[in-house]
Amino acid sequence: MTAAYDSLLAHLRETHLLTGAAALLAWDQETGMPPGAGDERARQLALLARLQHERRTEPRVGEWLATCERDPDGDADRAANLRELRRDFDRARRLPAALVEELAATESRAQLAWVAARAASDFAAFRPWLERMVDLQRQKADCLREPGHPRWDALADGFEPGMTAAGLRPLFAALRPRLTALRERLAGGTPPADALARRQVDEARQEAFVRAVVAAMGFDFHRGRLDRSAHPFCTNTGGDVRLTTRFRRDHVLDALGSAMHEAGHGLYEQGLAPAHRGTPLGEPVSLGVHESQSRLWENHVGRAHAFWQWCWPLAERHLGAAVAGFAAEAAFAAANRVEPGLIRVEADEATYDLHVLVRFELEQDLLDGDLAVADLPARWNELYRAQLGVEVPDDRRGCLQDVHWACGLFGYFPTYTLGNLYAAQLAAAADRALGGLAPWLARGEFQPLREWLRENVHRHGRRLPPAELCQRATGAPLSAESFLAHLERKLPTVYGL
Amino acid sequence: MTAAYDSLLAHLRETHLLTGAAALLAWDQETGMPPGAGDERARQLALLARLQHERRTEPRVGEWLATCERDPDGDADRAANLRELRRDFDRARRLPAALVEELAATESRAQLAWVAARAASDFAAFRPWLERMVDLQRQKADCLREPGHPRWDALADGFEPGMTAAGLRPLFAALRPRLTALRERLAGGTPPADALARRQVDEARQEAFVRAVVAAMGFDFHRGRLDRSAHPFCTNTGGDVRLTTRFRRDHVLDALGSAMHEAGHGLYEQGLAPAHRGTPLGEPVSLGVHESQSRLWENHVGRAHAFWQWCWPLAERHLGAAVAGFAAEAAFAAANRVEPGLIRVEADEATYDLHVLVRFELEQDLLDGDLAVADLPARWNELYRAQLGVEVPDDRRGCLQDVHWACGLFGYFPTYTLGNLYAAQLAAAADRALGGLAPWLARGEFQPLREWLRENVHRHGRRLPPAELCQRATGAPLSAESFLAHLERKLPTVYGL
Repeated sequence: MTAAYDSLLAHLRETHLLTGAAALLAWDQETGMPPGAGDERARQLALLARLQHERRTEPRVGEWLATCERDPDGDADRAANLRELRRDFDRARRLPAALVEELAATESRAQLAWVAARAASDFAAFRPWLERMVDLQRQKADCLREPGHPRWDALADGFEPGMTAAGLRPLFAALRPRLTALRERLAGGTPPADALARRQVDEARQEAFVRAVVAAMGFDFHRGRLDRSAHPFCTNTGGDVRLTTRFRRDHVLDALGSAMHEAGHGLYEQGLAPAHRGTPLGEPVSLGVHESQSRLWENHVGRAHAFWQWCWPLAERHLGAAVAGFAAEAAFAAANRVEPGLIRVEADEATYDLHVLVRFELEQDLLDGDLAVADLPARWNELYRAQLGVEVPDDRRGCLQDVHWACGLFGYFPTYTLGNLYAAQLAAAADRALGGLAPWLARGEFQPLREWLRENVHRHGRRLPPAELCQRATGAPLSAESFLAHLERKLPTVYGL
Repeated sequence: MTAAYDSLLAHLRETHLLTGAAALLAWDQETGMPPGAGDERARQLALLARLQHERRTEPRVGEWLATCERDPDGDADRAANLRELRRDFDRARRLPAALVEELAATESRAQLAWVAARAASDFAAFRPWLERMVDLQRQKADCLREPGHPRWDALADGFEPGMTAAGLRPLFAALRPRLTALRERLAGGTPPADALARRQVDEARQEAFVRAVVAAMGFDFHRGRLDRSAHPFCTNTGGDVRLTTRFRRDHVLDALGSAMHEAGHGLYEQGLAPAHRGTPLGEPVSLGVHESQSRLWENHVGRAHAFWQWCWPLAERHLGAAVAGFAAEAAFAAANRVEPGLIRVEADEATYDLHVLVRFELEQDLLDGDLAVADLPARWNELYRAQLGVEVPDDRRGCLQDVHWACGLFGYFPTYTLGNLYAAQLAAAADRALGGLAPWLARGEFQPLREWLRENVHRHGRRLPPAELCQRATGAPLSAESFLAHLERKLPTVYGL
């Protein structure tokens, strides 16, 4: 029994080396790969994906699992690992290796096509890639789903175990009226000035500033890097965690927010137990929980009044003359302006989830065949008008803004909303546990918060299902209450109400 | 028959994807990997090495080969591919997968240990790694060699097919007296001033200058990059060729020479036929020939009088005030100063091969057990005194200067000397074919030389054995004559003789 378990873990750890290698190849593709290397890189990533899939679905993996399952003894760690491995194995076995390989190659190529198409705001150039991708995702969903179950659910379950479209709809329905009421209330107040956010700041200065904040958060540069890419992301190449952000001369708060967001993801990855690397206990439990870590640092720290007490002197030191004449209060206000916009990643806390809702509707329709890819831009623009009240001027700022569908991430977007809810509930629990977060943030002492998250979230890996993790860490099941209360408390103050 | 050949090539091409992935991981290790990632990276590289080895030595590869060999028909390309594949297969089959994997892991780790040990000039810290490496190399040589044959030859054959210690000794014996006579002759002249080489030049300016030269050489940045590393190198991640150089404020000619050297390697890699990628016809034929490409650009172009006619205005433009008051003549002179020194990669053309000779002697003794690793520093210093007449002040500038042994490259150094000889003979042949190289270089028109090399060297891959390639391209077998004539013609002029 022990021999089977040990063999299983050794096999998984070795497979995980390929996962890390593939992550590095994908990181390089986004940060520095020369353009002419795209085709070969797609082949390399496809092969690594197929090799990982073959190793994960080898018959002996099933035999080791079955042997272990016949012996219910062993500690809780072992039981949790086996539970999660059974889930992974059964899911992986449903996918043919050829489909996995073709998906990986198409993801890599479609991503490069997306970069070019977005730059040119040319949906027609991206359309064949998206059509191919939708087709492959439907095939994938058909392999995974039980007969009659929604395709979307089968894909979403890979990102957030147990998440279904039917389960999400009431959540969105609960969020919408209170967010709308909040916006109406804010309309009676004074919008904060955003002059600071629009100052022209040298990119090298922005980078030094952002690096100082990320280091203060406790991101370990001994086992990580911070680079630049078109679309900020965080990836784990095997204990070596890589963040990216982007710098725009006229939007220093965007660089900061993106970097704090990705560093939140990075702290989660760096907080996973190295001893469990390559096994479920050393992996993030779900993308919703992952997103809770990024959103907590981005919003509950980076957009907090207390944070700017500490951060403003740092900003002054790094950004110099460009921000002269402003103060902490101005930064806090600029970071909390609420304004329905076109771009999800630039959205404020009160409208962000409406962007998610649009994508959630669209990807279900694409998978079910109720929406043709050719009709996507028009339908996108229609939903933005209805949900956010904005007119989309071009596809670059419309349906070409996100890389996700090019990367094969269908059923993924709603994990952002779950992340917002988890984040608020975790921040409230940490606030109670630490006797108030504000004094720590105001002094730039992030260690107590980071350690609380490490203890209550990171170190568990996939030991507890997301719902149980939430219950244990916060004392309650997930709800929208903490999130809404947080916004209803903070934003009216900003608007002078 | 065709089916077997097609299967064989498809299998090789797929295996080659892992080679490219491993090259990227190794590139990243040298250019940007955070220090804490070294252990996991070593594991990743070891697994990729084992997977490649397993795929190359699968029984079905032997079966496909045997089937193809039973059918002697087919074109010359096929015959050349099969000849080289047989060589590769038989060689690979002699190495156990476990040894290949352990070598890869030790190479990756020993390299990181070497970086730290060199920085601290701490041989004791590197010693256990080198002991382990020598032991593994002896095991490897014992797997590869015929009974009674030298270990060194078995390893060298992997870098330069057919190269043996016995074959090299007369070559070194022929070089030494004429190089010594040349140095004695130069001693009666006036050493060129090296004030230019010692000017303090901002690194960013150096980089812009070096990039302009590398681009003018025709290196394709659409399928390549230029980065920084402690030890300059060139690697091919699968059609995407990556060069590194280094910048020192007080040595702009070092950055230029290193970059031109690596770009010479890079042009060879980029000149291989993409249609043959992953098969012998798409691979460099030997490391001696590879080095001929780097040395040709570094020395026969970058240290040529005519080159500086073109390059000096470019240098002035990029380096600015730091080089004000100098002229093309000063740059040419500074690039051609002959002075026995401590560091191989900084050596002039007339003493470089004496550095190689030292290493050639030492690695034979290490492999044969005639020299203990513990005694290496003393023996190294003794040989430098005897061969170059210099006193080694510390191990950083002594036996810790080169990464090669840490990387498992035993039997490799003499390919540098072969490269010098090939380079001179190829440069002379190109000079004849193009009606004199100088006028082209003086105008910065490098295309005719590059195309001549592409036509006569690059595009062949491993189609012709090195000796035949040399005969066809230059009309003569390899000898030291062109190299010595080149130095005896150029250097006395520089020394005013």
